Amino acid sequence: MQIDEYGPWTVTPAPRRETDLQALQASLFAEFADFVGEYDGYAFYGRFDNMFAVANEIDPGTYERFQRRVRNRFPVTVSVGVGQASTPAGALGVASDRLQAAGSAQDGDRREILAVGDAGEDPSPTGPVTVAHFDVVDVTGSFTDRRNAADVTLAIRRATLELATYLREEYDCLTHFVGGDNVIAICPDVETRAFEDAVDRVRGETGIELQVGVGRGPTAHAAGDDAKHALERCRATGVRVRGADQLRAND
Amino acid sequence: MQIDEYGPWTVTPAPRRETDLQALQASLFAEFADFVGEYDGYAFYGRFDNMFAVANEIDPGTYERFQRRVRNRFPVTVSVGVGQASTPAGALGVASDRLQAAGSAQDGDRREILAVGDAGEDPSPTGPVTVAHFDVVDVTGSFTDRRNAADVTLAIRRATLELATYLREEYDCLTHFVGGDNVIAICPDVETRAFEDAVDRVRGETGIELQVGVGRGPTAHAAGDDAKHALERCRATGVRVRGADQLRAND
Amino acid sequence: MQIDEYGPWTVTPAPRRETDLQALQASLFAEFADFVGEYDGYAFYGRFDNMFAVANEIDPGTYERFQRRVRNRFPVTVSVGVGQASTPAGALGVASDRLQAAGSAQDGDRREILAVGDAGEDPSPTGPVTVAHFDVVDVTGSFTDRRNAADVTLAIRRATLELATYLREEYDCLTHFVGGDNVIAICPDVETRAFEDAVDRVRGETGIELQVGVGRGPTAHAAGDDAKHALERCRATGVRVRGADQLRAND
Amino acid sequence: MQIDEYGPWTVTPAPRRETDLQALQASLFAEFADFVGEYDGYAFYGRFDNMFAVANEIDPGTYERFQRRVRNRFPVTVSVGVGQASTPAGALGVASDRLQAAGSAQDGDRREILAVGDAGEDPSPTGPVTVAHFDVVDVTGSFTDRRNAADVTLAIRRATLELATYLREEYDCLTHFVGGDNVIAICPDVETRAFEDAVDRVRGETGIELQVGVGRGPTAHAAGDDAKHALERCRATGVRVRGADQLRAND
Repeated sequence: MQIDEYGPWTVTPAPRRETDLQALQASLFAEFADFVGEYDGYAFYGRFDNMFAVANEIDPGTYERFQRRVRNRFPVTVSVGVGQASTPAGALGVASDRLQAAGSAQDGDRREILAVGDAGEDPSPTGPVTVAHFDVVDVTGSFTDRRNAADVTLAIRRATLELATYLREEYDCLTHFVGGDNVIAICPDVETRAFEDAVDRVRGETGIELQVGVGRGPTAHAAGDDAKHALERCRATGVRVRGADQLRAND
Repeated sequence: MQIDEYGPWTVTPAPRRETDLQALQASLFAEFADFVGEYDGYAFYGRFDNMFAVANEIDPGTYERFQRRVRNRFPVTVSVGVGQASTPAGALGVASDRLQAAGSAQDGDRREILAVGDAGEDPSPTGPVTVAHFDVVDVTGSFTDRRNAADVTLAIRRATLELATYLREEYDCLTHFVGGDNVIAICPDVETRAFEDAVDRVRGETGIELQVGVGRGPTAHAAGDDAKHALERCRATGVRVRGADQLRAND
Repeated sequence: MQIDEYGPWTVTPAPRRETDLQALQASLFAEFADFVGEYDGYAFYGRFDNMFAVANEIDPGTYERFQRRVRNRFPVTVSVGVGQASTPAGALGVASDRLQAAGSAQDGDRREILAVGDAGEDPSPTGPVTVAHFDVVDVTGSFTDRRNAADVTLAIRRATLELATYLREEYDCLTHFVGGDNVIAICPDVETRAFEDAVDRVRGETGIELQVGVGRGPTAHAAGDDAKHALERCRATGVRVRGADQLRAND
Repeated sequence: MQIDEYGPWTVTPAPRRETDLQALQASLFAEFADFVGEYDGYAFYGRFDNMFAVANEIDPGTYERFQRRVRNRFPVTVSVGVGQASTPAGALGVASDRLQAAGSAQDGDRREILAVGDAGEDPSPTGPVTVAHFDVVDVTGSFTDRRNAADVTLAIRRATLELATYLREEYDCLTHFVGGDNVIAICPDVETRAFEDAVDRVRGETGIELQVGVGRGPTAHAAGDDAKHALERCRATGVRVRGADQLRAND
């Protein structure tokens, strides 16, 4: 999802007040998260002017409803690119391509585009998705309750960036900070071993210890809800990586 | 600003739906940005469960109004720590300390604390603040219109983290991503040279070329508005670092 | 839709600030309107603590999603009654009955009820609905631009009340003010003559001249959108009552 | 507060979706209530496209901040008229006059006007205001838990209209429904007897029994908060009219 001609708008006729922009962007993301969530997808704020969602069961035409709501509720309009591929990053790449093909993000003539594409594969139906939900082991005791909030934020950002870069390069995942010490990765069908490697990598590079619950299902919500329950088991048992399928088998 | 006992709330009685949490956090930040903006401060989303603001002219007692609004509008409550020091990171450290002294973020008995402190210096009045507003040179042409949105987001995050770490270590600044390709640093009274070094550092470490407008004033809004105008001059002239005071002198 | 135990909440532990309550109620209604609109229904704010919607194609179980969103975003929870009958007021009566049977609105033990009922008729499928969209002829020239806003509001309220009472008594319609000088009536399958009588009645009792567009369709949105277009024709032609089916035939 | 050129906007290029308009209006009112509440005023939704507030201690220039926030957050802009007079309805009349003098509500050239006036009296300082907060005796037991929600809404509307008309004609008060069974009247300095008469009048005309708490203070919030506490005493004691000043004397 891309706000149309947003850069120019923020400084026309003069730079707009920063807190107003912050509130606008946050409200638009809340609207986007609500919309996508209604269809069991997951939404991420990305760069706020470019947000993205994993929405396996949303018919692309449905985004016209979101575009209409934004047009009727906000001072800006949005364009939407939709992509399908065998990996999450691949699908977002297709969506980016289609949107770019329709014109520049700062082109005043490009408004409310809905551009749909696939990677040349059969576009239907979408398969299952894997969601990995990470958090920091004992973040409250080790960080929040002990350190300067500025440094806690930097530490979490560092762990997130390391994790996101690794999972992007190795497995074509989309990984995003979702608040607190939580990071969610949208992944193709990778083995548990991949997440163990990721946790090791982040520990090695940043000294921060992550744990992760993993779920798989037809939608981001279905997979993510399993991942959340699996993460609860990590918290309870001290295990670092746990799949939803292990819930019954191993406990 | 810290949401009281938020971690436990998000998983009680069972993990809450991720998009609802995203929408809640974003709405709470919009409320916070509006509130702080009303008093000419700047607000940053931090980790969403821990947000912060630079608010030189808000009387600490005023935050009780924000706490009341949250209590009456949201399903959570918030505690607030307020600190004053000679540098932004120092002041946030004081605020963190005071909040931590009042109890743990996950302590069910610690609710709606308003903890005010200073660094042992005379608490009044607050002095001026310096705001540096950075963005990426030609981000639309080089990134947004050309690359996978996932990789654009990672690149901006990398530049932000490098910049924030450098400015924190060298000058005790607070630096935060504010959407698109924009990053704002709240700084003590540093020389223009510091920002040139920061731009060089980010270019050297990440290959990303930043430009920056700098302003100074009694509030974050006053300083930040000057910084925005100065950044507009960078965009127009190709200069990489520009102070608001140079607007008349050099153009 | 009924806020659970709202009266007690507004005064516990002490009366809450009026503007906070106003903002909360309005935000909750915006959420409700968005939710219902997503399924092509129409929402009305009623008394704010009791709102209602005409939602012919929403599966009753879907309201659990709305209840979840409210629980996760607001400081209150809501119960929902769903009714089906051959007239709109009849259906709302069934919904009221079911909710009342589940416990009092101020009963602390009655929370997040979803009570579904029908009038003893076959519950499926729902039939078409008629929407009549009224406004005041030349409201801007005669009222808004000429009179004290207090008296304009009273005049519109008087016309609305007269209209709503008449259409309730004669045809079992649900009639609600929707902003400006607009009033929407949800009706069973009544003849055009009924709306002419209603317009005459309001003129006779209050001196206010209404015009009305009428539509019929499977959902409130489908019927209401036709009604809006028909009302546009009234505005253009000076005709007082116009059905959507007359659009092509008579123009 | 008047939305600029709102009527035309709602039907351009085609009639906009009703639930989107409902959500927009409600969100705008939530913003207005928050803004006015920040300065201890009271806000009422009026006709939604024309809202009003009692804001004794807001400097008129402050509304430019509200206009800016709306411009930066919503797809519409607003004009504001400010009036001062010896009665609430008189002040709203002055505000209406000033706004009307600046151009029609549907004039495309009239945008973001801030028109300030007084009734020819000395404009400063504003004096105290009286707030009367009414509700229906045992509304839950007599109405909400027993009757069709459609008819409860009509009954409350009838009582409100009767009350508002009476208090407007007799005392130049501004009276508005505020949710549930609550109605607030903003009044000049009238005697307790006036409210007894009003309660009698509503009972006589509609059969609905009201009770009322009355407060007086420098701002609507100060007066209204006292009125709420006085109303709590009515609920506890069965007295129909109670002034805040009687709290200590009579209990």
